[in-house]
Amino acid sequence: MADPRFFTKAGPFTLGELAKIGQAEVLLPNAASALVHDVASLTEAGPEDCAFFDNRKYLPQFQGSQAGFCVATADMAQHAPATMALLVSKNPYRSYALIAQAFYPIPATTGQIHPRAVIDATAIIGDNVQIGPGAVIGVRAQIGAGSIIEANVTIGDAVVIGANNRIMSNASLGYCELGERVVIYPGARIGQPGFGFAPDPVRPVKVPQLGRVIIGNDVEIGANTTIDRGALGDTVIGDGTMIDNLVQIGHNVKIGRCCVIVSQVGISGSTELADYVQLGGQAGVAGHLRLGKGAKVAAKSGLMRDVDPGQAVGGYPAMPIKQWHRQTARLSQIGKLKPDDAA
Amino acid sequence: MADPRFFTKAGPFTLGELAKIGQAEVLLPNAASALVHDVASLTEAGPEDCAFFDNRKYLPQFQGSQAGFCVATADMAQHAPATMALLVSKNPYRSYALIAQAFYPIPATTGQIHPRAVIDATAIIGDNVQIGPGAVIGVRAQIGAGSIIEANVTIGDAVVIGANNRIMSNASLGYCELGERVVIYPGARIGQPGFGFAPDPVRPVKVPQLGRVIIGNDVEIGANTTIDRGALGDTVIGDGTMIDNLVQIGHNVKIGRCCVIVSQVGISGSTELADYVQLGGQAGVAGHLRLGKGAKVAAKSGLMRDVDPGQAVGGYPAMPIKQWHRQTARLSQIGKLKPDDAA
Amino acid sequence: MADPRFFTKAGPFTLGELAKIGQAEVLLPNAASALVHDVASLTEAGPEDCAFFDNRKYLPQFQGSQAGFCVATADMAQHAPATMALLVSKNPYRSYALIAQAFYPIPATTGQIHPRAVIDATAIIGDNVQIGPGAVIGVRAQIGAGSIIEANVTIGDAVVIGANNRIMSNASLGYCELGERVVIYPGARIGQPGFGFAPDPVRPVKVPQLGRVIIGNDVEIGANTTIDRGALGDTVIGDGTMIDNLVQIGHNVKIGRCCVIVSQVGISGSTELADYVQLGGQAGVAGHLRLGKGAKVAAKSGLMRDVDPGQAVGGYPAMPIKQWHRQTARLSQIGKLKPDDAA
Repeated sequence: MADPRFFTKAGPFTLGELAKIGQAEVLLPNAASALVHDVASLTEAGPEDCAFFDNRKYLPQFQGSQAGFCVATADMAQHAPATMALLVSKNPYRSYALIAQAFYPIPATTGQIHPRAVIDATAIIGDNVQIGPGAVIGVRAQIGAGSIIEANVTIGDAVVIGANNRIMSNASLGYCELGERVVIYPGARIGQPGFGFAPDPVRPVKVPQLGRVIIGNDVEIGANTTIDRGALGDTVIGDGTMIDNLVQIGHNVKIGRCCVIVSQVGISGSTELADYVQLGGQAGVAGHLRLGKGAKVAAKSGLMRDVDPGQAVGGYPAMPIKQWHRQTARLSQIGKLKPDDAA
Repeated sequence: MADPRFFTKAGPFTLGELAKIGQAEVLLPNAASALVHDVASLTEAGPEDCAFFDNRKYLPQFQGSQAGFCVATADMAQHAPATMALLVSKNPYRSYALIAQAFYPIPATTGQIHPRAVIDATAIIGDNVQIGPGAVIGVRAQIGAGSIIEANVTIGDAVVIGANNRIMSNASLGYCELGERVVIYPGARIGQPGFGFAPDPVRPVKVPQLGRVIIGNDVEIGANTTIDRGALGDTVIGDGTMIDNLVQIGHNVKIGRCCVIVSQVGISGSTELADYVQLGGQAGVAGHLRLGKGAKVAAKSGLMRDVDPGQAVGGYPAMPIKQWHRQTARLSQIGKLKPDDAA
Repeated sequence: MADPRFFTKAGPFTLGELAKIGQAEVLLPNAASALVHDVASLTEAGPEDCAFFDNRKYLPQFQGSQAGFCVATADMAQHAPATMALLVSKNPYRSYALIAQAFYPIPATTGQIHPRAVIDATAIIGDNVQIGPGAVIGVRAQIGAGSIIEANVTIGDAVVIGANNRIMSNASLGYCELGERVVIYPGARIGQPGFGFAPDPVRPVKVPQLGRVIIGNDVEIGANTTIDRGALGDTVIGDGTMIDNLVQIGHNVKIGRCCVIVSQVGISGSTELADYVQLGGQAGVAGHLRLGKGAKVAAKSGLMRDVDPGQAVGGYPAMPIKQWHRQTARLSQIGKLKPDDAA
């Protein structure tokens, strides 16, 4: 169970209530009135807890689980222990996420502005905004209703933050507009100048970076991630896109809706991602490329070409994923040869 | 055009004035008195704006541009639309940079020290220094005239910052000396102890890190970049070197003048870069190496050997760039073979 | 010598005292009473300084050194200059580390709490704790005796920090417990939510991250490194583990004792490292893997499989290290072929 010093639990809920919340069905209707007290993993859940089973690799843990309740797909019902009541869902992980959100709702704003926050007199602060100590809000900045600005955050002049955002501790935002329900993790840097200069033997001539960063609704930006503002025009992050920690996004990058960008990815300037693109961890993407809708780039790949919609690529340099897998398999034979076998 | 909430525009300038500023020439002298109101990209510029054309890939955009004014090389004049007045330059991007700096000069210091800054009584603050709320200046630290220290920056004891520097929000500086006109981006960490310890089965024995970080003039250090101080002796960054976001520079690294280090590069301890070295994004450089003047390392390479002056290398492990390109081309054939074709 | 503006030197010590401190032996006993004034490198040390010699690559520097004193292995005594008194050690670097610690002890806590720190009334602050300006300590947080919390650090609600820790400037800690003598470098982010959500065509459904980060004794966490808290269950870092800058550690990762994790490494969720595992710089490790005791992963490798205890692996994808070296050697031949030689 979650440590009560850090997390506040709601509930209990009946299994029927959780079915509604999780968009699932109670397998045996007469179990719908049973009380569920918490969520837990298959191995840690007890008779009052609800687990989830989403990966056949964990079938033994499912079969041996003490969980009183579990979300699973219908075809797994035959493997469930006799003591387990099932919630059936086509997408158990999604159903579990919704149920866990019910038990552990995101802490709401306190609506309190700490006296050690530093808010410019011209800033516009919405209703019910929470601002922590050491936070700095610049000239004419706007903070939307219900948003939380944590301690030691710096919000630059004229920045616009929508409703119900959460800006976590020690982050810096400048030259940007954020939609609603955006979460910025600790230490993220949004809106600094991009890496643009003209080479010169005496010293580089910096190119003024005159754009902004525009972030849609329901976006998350990971800890210590950096997103540069545009040079001419904007850097754009679409609705529902999830960005992990320590990611670099260069100036004038355009990212579509519901993309997934895993930790330590780097995207060079002016590259454009359509909707639903996925980039694996530590992947690097060169500048001025286009990645089509639903394109997937394997972890640690080095991408130097456009990617068609729906195409999966991998390798360094990146190539179609099947080609890369075949190449990898054959190359591994080369290294297995003993010195005598070499031509 | 740049969002006036974030950027303050100077001008207008005559085309003749911009020619001087940009070290370019007005192609048709009787256009020199025309007024130019802003800079913009080829596709967004209108009759009063000045664009630049530097990459033949964008020739169609140049030919179709509505820009009244444009910087380009002389040989492109034949392709210019009839409505466009040209500024001719051997280096259009550099000329554009200078012109854009005239329209959008870097905001000057306000000379104001915020009452919520925390400045040690022994610190020495130069004339016309701007210090933001939450900034902390340590014992005997020195801030040179005209410098800007943004909100929530931490400057450690005895740090020396030269004139006209800009230290952006939430950065941390310790055990370092900076020259003039240095820009440190948000969240950069300068001067923490390097990664040095003697292994031990009980627990590692930390080796005291007794050096500093010495940064020259006109250097830029990207957001959330980390530069460790030396162990014995200093970590050194030469004049005019540009370092992008999320770069790691280990203890005792020496970097020459006007180097370019792209995002997410890592340079291990005691490696030395001569002047004008370029490292592509996500490249990794092992420790105790020497990279000669003008050496180039391709993005995402893993470098384990010295590089001669002027040499270009790439790959993992890195090899001469032409060798790597040939290897890559041939390997791509291997992966294209179908299973039946394999030996 | 270390810059006295930044470092305070203890001593002098007799060579005999340093032998005890460094767990070494004075080679010529009548030198034991000689006074040693500082530590320095082989090339910079003078007659009053103690250097160390640990890498045969630097034999010429050893032979030509002006150092009055030096730590070395017994078999190197024959190469020492006549003016050099030796301290003999099986592990000269470790002996040097202990000696350097004696000359430059870690600065102790001042025990002072700055009036511009913001400490919740319910927080529990131990004896002799130092807290810098702008530091924020949350509700019911605990700071152990002798710990130092530097400027602009944010410590979240209910966080537990053991004795004699040092949390450097601008770091953020939440949802975590730290042991004793832990050092957190500037800008590190500990305890933010992991990257967990269920995909959805409208917008991703965030999975509540209900675990913590548990950090043992004598751990160091590098600058701008990010460690996510667990989803269900904890992220764990074992005693004596050293983590460099800009490292990403995903939710539910378990790391054993005395591991070494070099800069810019990424470890995906739920992966487990046994004791004494070493990961080279920029290595990436996929999720749900197990790395056995003493496993070694070469710099920049991409690891997608479990690693047996004591095994060394390298490459992308990673394979046994000898296989990778053979493959690399043979592939380098392919790229050296001229176009005419290709099949």
